[in-house]
Amino acid sequence: MLTNVRSDRVRSVRSLSRRSVRERTGRFVVDGPQGVREAIRYAAERVDDLYVTGAAAQRHSDLVDAAHAARVRVHDTDEAVLAAMSDTESPQGLLAVVATESPTLDDVLARTPRLLVLLSSVRDPGNAGTVIRGADAFGADAVLVTEGSVDVHSPKVVRSTVGSIFHLPVVTGLDVTATLDALAAHGIRTLAADGAGTTLLPDADLDGPHAWVMGNEAWGLPEEVKARCADVVRVPIHDRVESLNLAMAATVCLAASSGATRPR
Amino acid sequence: MLTNVRSDRVRSVRSLSRRSVRERTGRFVVDGPQGVREAIRYAAERVDDLYVTGAAAQRHSDLVDAAHAARVRVHDTDEAVLAAMSDTESPQGLLAVVATESPTLDDVLARTPRLLVLLSSVRDPGNAGTVIRGADAFGADAVLVTEGSVDVHSPKVVRSTVGSIFHLPVVTGLDVTATLDALAAHGIRTLAADGAGTTLLPDADLDGPHAWVMGNEAWGLPEEVKARCADVVRVPIHDRVESLNLAMAATVCLAASSGATRPR
Repeated sequence: MLTNVRSDRVRSVRSLSRRSVRERTGRFVVDGPQGVREAIRYAAERVDDLYVTGAAAQRHSDLVDAAHAARVRVHDTDEAVLAAMSDTESPQGLLAVVATESPTLDDVLARTPRLLVLLSSVRDPGNAGTVIRGADAFGADAVLVTEGSVDVHSPKVVRSTVGSIFHLPVVTGLDVTATLDALAAHGIRTLAADGAGTTLLPDADLDGPHAWVMGNEAWGLPEEVKARCADVVRVPIHDRVESLNLAMAATVCLAASSGATRPR
Repeated sequence: MLTNVRSDRVRSVRSLSRRSVRERTGRFVVDGPQGVREAIRYAAERVDDLYVTGAAAQRHSDLVDAAHAARVRVHDTDEAVLAAMSDTESPQGLLAVVATESPTLDDVLARTPRLLVLLSSVRDPGNAGTVIRGADAFGADAVLVTEGSVDVHSPKVVRSTVGSIFHLPVVTGLDVTATLDALAAHGIRTLAADGAGTTLLPDADLDGPHAWVMGNEAWGLPEEVKARCADVVRVPIHDRVESLNLAMAATVCLAASSGATRPR
């Protein structure tokens, strides 16, 4: 049982809350039962270590069994150690250290995707996590993230994906212009989601392969990015409302693409 | 210029971060330019006081002019006073104290609403705020909130509505059963949004007046509430995903109701 909150191990796990450490070590932290469950289910070979309190091991015995079956190293810890490892006040008794995966845009394109999301300079962890979750829920083939965006392996993003980060490839560090050109060259229609778009969502062409392009929370998409997209699409909303937030707009666009909202 | 962070006035504004004080005084706080702008535009008669730093008064001079024109009392303050009044670290230089409004369910029903949202035991401030914003954006006539839900006048909820709380009536403290019965008696179809629903959203009847009923973040809607609704509707999502979060599900359902996602 790990009980020393000042051990090197605790310090080293905790240091993964810093982006520079994650990038140097190629490791990130997943906490909470839902995220840990999906990590073991979909990416067990990348799980280095699982830390579990006694209470959580009882509550989630199926999950601990699955970890053992997948040959994940499982460590018993007390509550204090788990709290010291995590950046959240209530890590819910379970925390895994996982190796990052670095799929490339070419990997994604090679699988002839039908639905993608490109996040351009998105900064808020909750927004990025919610978009990854929405992309997963509505059957997108991957999420693409430009350089200058939030780190998708930060604890807050990982937590708000609730395990979805293990369900579909997330490509990071992309150049927005080169990515838009590559998508177009592969016959994927690029649709900028923008409150000033002239095409309304119900009129947008969502039949073929396409990618939703979402901009920064505060300033949206730069003109030159919108000009490079095949269409600029607006979710129709009431006049008195200035805008939807990024996560809401992405959710509605993805739901429309998946057919979740159209009579069949 | 207000500069004393220990003054009674600062203490009294700050105390509005507590629900009990808001309920006793019938006042709440709105901070940030977007929320304050909508308060002045839609509810100036309810704005008691507006506190503004010099920098914010320059940046948002139109807003300060509008406040003066609406005979709102405007107070110059320094940054320290504004920070001490607010529960957020960056109140962005503007903070208003506003009287709460208490519309009733009868008020709402008297206006023959076409689209409503009923939040039943919703606890997370960000979720409640996002649903109010989504209801506003997609043209709902009101938001109904049961007793035992988060206080919609808490600073976090108000902030995440980004002004929408001033655009449509928000009725609070409702009994869920009595409310469902009242809606049905007025010919408003009640649609429980639930991941276990048998009707898929694209097949749901959204033509007539209807109300979306959304449950708690963790445990959803109790069986007896679902049994009282006209239909139980599920947003179709990918098998590997356990659920959408409350705000995402509400956003998709409301967007579908508004026609924002259907070809016309």
